[in-house]
Amino acid sequence: MCRVTGPETDEPLVAPEARALLAVLREAGPLTRAQLAERTGLARTTLTARLETLLGAGLVVPAGGAASRGGRPPGLLAFRTDARLVVGIDLGATHAVVGLADLAGAVVASRAERLAVTEGPDAVLGRVSELARELVDASGRPWSDVVGVGVGLPGPVEHSTGRPVRPPIMPGWDGFDVPALLRERLGVPLVLVDNDVNLLALGEHTSAWSSTDDLLFVKVATGIGAGIVAGGRLQRGAQGSAGDLGHVRVPFTRDTPPHGDADADLEALASGPAVARALREHGVPAHDADDVVELALRERPEAVQALRQAGRDLGEVLATVVNLLNPGVIVVGGTLARAGEHLLAGVRETVYGRSTALATRDLTIVPATSRETGGVLGAAVMVSQHVLDGPAER
Amino acid sequence: MCRVTGPETDEPLVAPEARALLAVLREAGPLTRAQLAERTGLARTTLTARLETLLGAGLVVPAGGAASRGGRPPGLLAFRTDARLVVGIDLGATHAVVGLADLAGAVVASRAERLAVTEGPDAVLGRVSELARELVDASGRPWSDVVGVGVGLPGPVEHSTGRPVRPPIMPGWDGFDVPALLRERLGVPLVLVDNDVNLLALGEHTSAWSSTDDLLFVKVATGIGAGIVAGGRLQRGAQGSAGDLGHVRVPFTRDTPPHGDADADLEALASGPAVARALREHGVPAHDADDVVELALRERPEAVQALRQAGRDLGEVLATVVNLLNPGVIVVGGTLARAGEHLLAGVRETVYGRSTALATRDLTIVPATSRETGGVLGAAVMVSQHVLDGPAER
Repeated sequence: MCRVTGPETDEPLVAPEARALLAVLREAGPLTRAQLAERTGLARTTLTARLETLLGAGLVVPAGGAASRGGRPPGLLAFRTDARLVVGIDLGATHAVVGLADLAGAVVASRAERLAVTEGPDAVLGRVSELARELVDASGRPWSDVVGVGVGLPGPVEHSTGRPVRPPIMPGWDGFDVPALLRERLGVPLVLVDNDVNLLALGEHTSAWSSTDDLLFVKVATGIGAGIVAGGRLQRGAQGSAGDLGHVRVPFTRDTPPHGDADADLEALASGPAVARALREHGVPAHDADDVVELALRERPEAVQALRQAGRDLGEVLATVVNLLNPGVIVVGGTLARAGEHLLAGVRETVYGRSTALATRDLTIVPATSRETGGVLGAAVMVSQHVLDGPAER
Repeated sequence: MCRVTGPETDEPLVAPEARALLAVLREAGPLTRAQLAERTGLARTTLTARLETLLGAGLVVPAGGAASRGGRPPGLLAFRTDARLVVGIDLGATHAVVGLADLAGAVVASRAERLAVTEGPDAVLGRVSELARELVDASGRPWSDVVGVGVGLPGPVEHSTGRPVRPPIMPGWDGFDVPALLRERLGVPLVLVDNDVNLLALGEHTSAWSSTDDLLFVKVATGIGAGIVAGGRLQRGAQGSAGDLGHVRVPFTRDTPPHGDADADLEALASGPAVARALREHGVPAHDADDVVELALRERPEAVQALRQAGRDLGEVLATVVNLLNPGVIVVGGTLARAGEHLLAGVRETVYGRSTALATRDLTIVPATSRETGGVLGAAVMVSQHVLDGPAER
């Protein structure tokens, strides 16, 4: 185990007063000092001082002049997206993915391995710390280039403290100070933690749907959860627990409720384990979500039918969510969404049938584009936004 | 009928480049030019030019110096909240309230009268236009001081166009160009329209809960709807239809479903007409929501029980919403919320019992503080925000 000690201070990489100036360069691309002065209205001395801090941090660099061949150098300045590295860590129930990204959220390297979250925080966070160090070492960049670490966990997280709150499938993690341990192991002051589904929503929004202000990401795997982007921003709610779909009750629409109740938690109907159990009850051997996906990809009728029904059950809840939030797009990810269109067909059937006409007029329901590194991407975007834009204004 | 023609241009009152400067004064209170230069970093000539536009519009004025007795005038500049007037119009199923507000959202005068929205857009908008003119005439201010008109309607509205979309209780209003008619009648270029419940949420958030970023306003009256503030901003969704709670299906928890179904729309269970019908089925004469409230205020047991059950049914849906959005506060308004604590007791019983521990840890469920002018306040705030902050960035 390699322990690193690092700066205990949390001096921001971008001084608050320089953020707006950097934002202009990020948005507009390379500009001259004169153009920057015109666009910001800043006093010349103020502009110079703020540019100095950005140049000093390496976040802004002279952009060699494609437009200046043979002439006087145009003095263009540009945001340098690879000035720093961000480590993104995505933990699932049984897997871990660790990646390196630049400040624009591009994942430049990643490592994945099977790792059970039930091994507890010390073992799991120790292992992903090793993976992070290996990745940075392999990149040839110094550790001091790592500006922050983002972590996604498969359970409720109090985002402001980075501690899991009664996570159902993470024994030993309740209230654990994840940022403190990673700061100690990796020597990086900035560690941000969030629910994995929030980060999938953030990553998908940034990479594929940035022009859509209202997006719902639904993950259907061992559990069921949602990440909400509303008004262009990830919404975590008052305690950071927004997006809990798994414990919503669903009235039964089929003839024989599995447990004799009049309704059930959504997770008891449409999660990976629930669909696998439904298949076993029909005599089809299926242990988990992966088995369900494999059977469905081979077009086994029982699996296709079970996935479609799971989609309908999920659609019952999403119909309510669509009436409530009126998203422009619903992105469905997680293991069960990898089995082709069966799950989504069930979702669409119910949502388009049940939600109001206005709310579904331009609604798109699509599978997630990101696969293995989707969570890492979101974790990196969370950290980049924090570093470049400052802490969320809340 | 008094018809007014006015400017057809939509020249913004605050030039976009001057908004940030005005925001500093709105936030900080009176400041000197030197303090403004220091806080904004603006070049002196830029600051002077931007201040000139604000001074010219009357939005910024010299603030006579309480701190300058006998000495040199300190040259303080201040935002003048009464530089312009905003007209707020709140239309319900059977009432209209018209108010005048300043740019800080304070309602300075209002008029209310019974007016059936079923009379159609020409008659209804004609009448509220007359009321608006009477109010402004009585205020002694010229019409040219009115910077914009905000309208709340009791049905779905496409906020970007101001047109109602298939509003269930507003025959003749579907697709009607509300802004065009009011622009013609009142000669005010800026007319913004939204769902009444969104405006109640905005008004309540601004006046009573501005330090809470995540608020849900639920109106229980002829219909049932919600307004969502998330991340400190009103969320309208992709088509502006967010907040439709009335058509969410509720699984029955009582012994005898009223219609023999396994579930029903929330409005069929917990709206004013639904509770009145439930009372009639118990032999208690109740025609509408007002009757229910009157009976409950007299502690008539059947009315108290019916309101509590309506609260439980509403709570079934809100339990899902709480899991999904994790609001810090739920504000319950509308006619049925005026009957004391009975409705809220039912809501609390179900929500605290059903939602997750984290989502309800610090959740507050309270009655609305705003009564008659709540909708007018929200309509005025919508217009003020648009004028001072610019159109929402979406």
